[in-house]
Formats: sequence, structure tokens, C-alpha cells
Amino acid sequence: MREVAIIGVGTTKFGELWDRSFRDIAVEAGLKAIEDAGISGDDIDALYGGNMSAGRFVEQEHIGALISDYAGLSGLHIAATRVEAGCASGALALHSAVLSVASGWYDLVIAAGVEKMTDVDDDIASDLLVSGVDREWEAICGATLPSLFALMAKAHMQKYHTTSEQMAKVAVKNHVNATHNPLAQYRRAISAEAVLGSPMVADPLHMLDCSGIADGASAAVVCTAETAKKYTESPIYVKASAQASDTISLHDRRDLTTMDATVFAAKKAYQMAALEPTQIDVAEVHDSYTIAELIAIEDLGFFEKGAGGTATEEGQTELGGKIPINPSGGLKACGHPLGATGIRQVAEIVQQLRGEAGKRQVPNAEVGLTHNIGGTGGTAIVHIFTR
Amino acid sequence: MREVAIIGVGTTKFGELWDRSFRDIAVEAGLKAIEDAGISGDDIDALYGGNMSAGRFVEQEHIGALISDYAGLSGLHIAATRVEAGCASGALALHSAVLSVASGWYDLVIAAGVEKMTDVDDDIASDLLVSGVDREWEAICGATLPSLFALMAKAHMQKYHTTSEQMAKVAVKNHVNATHNPLAQYRRAISAEAVLGSPMVADPLHMLDCSGIADGASAAVVCTAETAKKYTESPIYVKASAQASDTISLHDRRDLTTMDATVFAAKKAYQMAALEPTQIDVAEVHDSYTIAELIAIEDLGFFEKGAGGTATEEGQTELGGKIPINPSGGLKACGHPLGATGIRQVAEIVQQLRGEAGKRQVPNAEVGLTHNIGGTGGTAIVHIFTR
Repeated sequence: MREVAIIGVGTTKFGELWDRSFRDIAVEAGLKAIEDAGISGDDIDALYGGNMSAGRFVEQEHIGALISDYAGLSGLHIAATRVEAGCASGALALHSAVLSVASGWYDLVIAAGVEKMTDVDDDIASDLLVSGVDREWEAICGATLPSLFALMAKAHMQKYHTTSEQMAKVAVKNHVNATHNPLAQYRRAISAEAVLGSPMVADPLHMLDCSGIADGASAAVVCTAETAKKYTESPIYVKASAQASDTISLHDRRDLTTMDATVFAAKKAYQMAALEPTQIDVAEVHDSYTIAELIAIEDLGFFEKGAGGTATEEGQTELGGKIPINPSGGLKACGHPLGATGIRQVAEIVQQLRGEAGKRQVPNAEVGLTHNIGGTGGTAIVHIFTR
Repeated sequence: MREVAIIGVGTTKFGELWDRSFRDIAVEAGLKAIEDAGISGDDIDALYGGNMSAGRFVEQEHIGALISDYAGLSGLHIAATRVEAGCASGALALHSAVLSVASGWYDLVIAAGVEKMTDVDDDIASDLLVSGVDREWEAICGATLPSLFALMAKAHMQKYHTTSEQMAKVAVKNHVNATHNPLAQYRRAISAEAVLGSPMVADPLHMLDCSGIADGASAAVVCTAETAKKYTESPIYVKASAQASDTISLHDRRDLTTMDATVFAAKKAYQMAALEPTQIDVAEVHDSYTIAELIAIEDLGFFEKGAGGTATEEGQTELGGKIPINPSGGLKACGHPLGATGIRQVAEIVQQLRGEAGKRQVPNAEVGLTHNIGGTGGTAIVHIFTR
């Protein structure tokens, strides 16, 4: 199979974009990525759009054709596909694009992720989130997404003595990082006291342990490594693209403190890239809740299982630490418009590897990783990139 | 790229399956396909699930992981992806599976399509259908899906003198075919008088010009042509798999009497297969409305543009005619559970090419075609198969 590279990325502001529509932000991200790549729309062979739930958020399906059309590409009659795996829909769009280019099926493909969450009431948005887990066995019993992550947190606390303070530290770190990210939803530092003093959503998770509701879109232009040089002097190479699944419901898992989908996807990704976790310089991981970041950095092999809390407490995941995690601010502070997140993480790593991340730059970052999950880990997708 | 074959198919009964859930029917179709292929679940590398709108029909997203889990595959941690392109989601699942196997990314993949439409009220279902076209420019003005196809019908009548009687003949033919299909939703013959006398839904389309609301699922097992022989003596080869898009809204099209997405996808498919329309022995085309079948058989090159009505009137598309269209009964009479349809069409063609279609068998069928569209033709996907 052919080697694949990313030659352009683009992301909208994340947040409450009440003056913009779903299609507006999808097109904005796409055009930014096209401009960044220095290509013309005519060069595009196919489009993969990651989106979790536009059917309910904005009563619109057929997202691939919609985005292609409103991006002015309808005259090209390109293949336009929407992919969905809950909150992992963004990374799934990139994975699909990578697969289609690696295979030789297409030469130049755009992968986009988009979600418009603020056009519905908050209680509807909360209910929509639970569509990513098991509606008939979890949601129907009253489980919300925070409550399911709270169960994981409780198990992690019991088994590994992880503390609320350690989880709060994830939020504190990611909010600091977001102050340097002009596109982030929450660009203000918060204290551990503020996290621990914020209202309890689902014990032990406080409001500030949780990512918020946001609108946003992000896009990436993917082509072969060979043609990439034609467009840019700094292509970012996709060394691995791996996807794995697990039970959609939490009660069927063998262990609440680990996500097997992440473990399997990571193992596959490290094999594909022929790299070890210690060789990763910077990573964007799925911190929809603070406990999710701790579980992720363990499952990805950056720290021993159970050591995520201590490592975070010690500052090992800060900018300047052993392995900077979520320099963008993560889902927690950059914002989490479901389907957009997976591509937004990729855009961050591309900027990091290009050395264009400004005040949140990880010095000399050469190898980056992204990790995006759906639901409570029913899907996990891991990408590894090099410059 | 590697040659790809289908080694197993399975389809549930189509209709109002009130005693079955979304996941029940998805798993039933999958298990039937697995049994038909003579494989074990452990052989499966990946799953592509086509579904249009489970988010609204059954308030469930993350469909790939859900199906994989309830099919008992969660322990394999396979890549499980949901794809969506409105009513073309089923064919999109097959296209994605074919691409992933042809490329060498995966070796054995299951493609499934599923939709559970009858768990909501009819008016909600009608509104859901319009999610496949442009919510902000069509649905919001009151356009329903039948009304948009009615506009195409009016244009076709004006430009090519197509008659209501010719459209009714599509329904009559497909209902006759469905009487021989044990899985069809409507297994009764109807007369042209009955069609023309049924209530007007959107002039000139009567109720019996329209496909109904249905539940159903269908699945196909895809592997390389090389390994196919290990499992079956009658693999069906995928000679072409082509996808194209167009404007999602009707008012932006250059011509209401043709669907450019179909024209482009068909052209690409014939090129891939190195075949001409005259070499197709049997086809399943997207007859969500009777006019859609007429437009399809013209756009696919079976008849000159504008000649579809006359050809149908003359019986050229009946079993025994020049080119039998929709021997299964089509979307009109076999039923149209949105995301399931594209795979169900494939299952029919596989049975036809195997010579297993019973009383609806097209004698000596060697080359078959499927055609599946999303919305009013915002997406079209064409597959060509040989035995």
C-alpha cells in the first residue's frame, strides 16, 4: 500500500457559534484546509465527513453530499461519504480517507469532521450524547454519559488509588494549554480548587471534570506521500491508522479501568508505525472527562496501568513534561463538538510537527499521536504521524 | 488492487416487524450471511454498517460498534464502521467493504444495511425521509420526498410525454415480481387501475407509486476472489463499485429528468467492469417512486433518455423482457427500509447470478447490476457483478 501524507488542515473556532449553521462551519473548515494545502477544489477525488448526530441536532442526514454541495464541489460528482462512530466519527473520517488513498482507490481526499450541538436545548443534547452508548440497556436505565465515566472513575480510584485531585489536574493542565490556543472554546486557566468546588455532575466527576457542549468543524487534506511534496515542503506523514471496537455497553466489559478498544488500536498502530510509546513526542487524547485522559495515557502505553493519576500530578503530561498530552487544551478546554474532535486533534498534531503551534509548541516534536474514542470506548481510533 | 467476491448474503423479512428491535434484525441478517458464506464469525476482519437515521428512528448512534457487539463479535475488537448517504447507505456499506478488501487493508469483511422505521409515527417517519434532502432549502419550505419526485415526474412527463399509466406499470410489474419473493413486504399483484385510483400523494404520484415504510436488514460477506473459492463453489465477483454525488437539493440541478450522480457512477462502473449496458442481464434499481425507476433505467443506459416509460409499457423490463428490472419486487414491493435497501439489492443479484431466485429467476443471468441512490440523487452508487 502507498504511504500517505497530510498536506493541509483547517479548523473553525470551537464554541457556541449561534450565528453559524452546520453547513457554514463544515465549509469554513474545508476551505481553510484546502487553502492551507495550496490545492484547488478540482484536485479532490473524494470526501469523508465524520459526524455523530446531525440527524437529531439539525435534522439533516446525507451529510457527505451536503458538505460536498455547499463546498461548491457538486459539479465534480466526487464520492462523498459520511462515517459515524459516535464521538470517534472525526478520526474515522481520517482513517477512511487514509485507507482510500493508501489503497490507490483515490489520490487526493478531504477528511472533515463537524458537529453543531448548540441549536438544541441542553437536555436534548445530553440525551443525544447517550445515543453513543447502549440506548436499550444503559440510557433506558437512566445512565448519562457522565455517569458511565463516573463508574470508570470510581473503579480506577478503588483499584489504583487515583484521587479527585489528580483528575482535577487534568482539567487544570488542559485549561492552561487552551489559553494559548486561539480556536479553543474555554481560553481561561482554572484552579484545582475551582474544579473540585464545581457542582457534582456524577460522583466523583464535577462539572469542570467534563467537556462542554460546542459547535465546530475541522478538516484535513490527505494525499500520497509521493505527491505531497508537490504541494508543500512540510508534509506530515501518516505512519499508522488503526481502528478497533469493543462492547458498546460498559457492563459487558472485562475491566472498567481500561478500554480494550484503545489497547487494541494502539497495539496495531505501534506495529504499523514500527514505533514504541516512548518514541511519541506529543499526543492528543480523548479527554471528554478527566478520567478518560488518565485511562487513555495508560492504555496508550505512556504510563503503567494505574500510574496515570500520579504522572499527571507530577506534571509529566504538561507542556515541558515527559510527554505533553493535549497541548491544544483537549476536548476539555479546546471544546468537543463530537464529530469534529477527531480531525481537530489531527490538525493540532500537524501544527505541532510543523513547528507552528506558537506558545503551546512542544519543542522539536517529530512524532505525534492522536486518540479518539466513541461512546465509552465502543470504538477507538489511533493515528501516528511523523514530520 | 485485488479482485473481490461476495460469498454469502442474508436478508430478513421486510415489513412492519413490530416484535423485533433494530439490533435483532441487524444481527439476523448478519448471521444469515455468515451461515450462507460458511464462515465463522472469527474470520471477520471488519464490519461496515449502512444506516440512514437510527439516531432519530431508534435514538441510537454508534451503529458499527452496536451491531458488532450484538452479533457476538466484540471479543474480536474488529474495525466496525457506520456509513451513511441517506437511502444509499446500504450500497455505501458494500462499496466501503469492497474498497477495504480490494486495497489489501482487510481480507474478509461483512457489509450490512439496516433500518427500523416503524417504531415512530408515520408523520415522524415522513419528516425523517426529508433529512436525506436539503433540510434548510427544501424541507423547510414544505417539500416532502414524494413532492420532490413529483417535480421530476412532471418534468419527465412534459419533456418526454411520459404518462401516469407508464409510471403505474412500474408498480404493477414490481408487485407481480414480489409475489415470488418470500421476503417481500407487499406480496400481492396490483392493477394499473388500482395504482391510478389510489389517493394522490403529490401530483402526479399516487399512493401506489410510492414505496412504503418498512423495517428490514440485509448483509453480505466480502472477501478476495482468491480466497472465495475456499468457502464456496459459486462466488459472485464484484466487477465494479462506483460512487458519485450531486447537489443535495433538486433546485440546483441542471435537469430534473436525469440524475447526474447516477450517470457519473454508471459511467465509472461500466469502465471498471469493461462492460456495456447491453451486457447487463438483470438489474436492481432504486424505485422508491415509480418515476425513479424510469429515470434510473435511462440514466443507466438501458434505454435512451425519455424512452423509459415506453419501454416499461411494452414489458421490456418485466421478467422475460429485454432487461428484467427489479425481479425482487424493488423498493416499491419488496419494501424500502432505507439503509437496508442497497444491500438487499445486492443479495437479490447474488441469488440471481447463482441461479437461486426460484420463480423470479432470470434465466442464465451472468451479469447483474445494482443501483442505489440517496435523497433525490445527491448520492448514487452502482455495482456490477458476474458469476
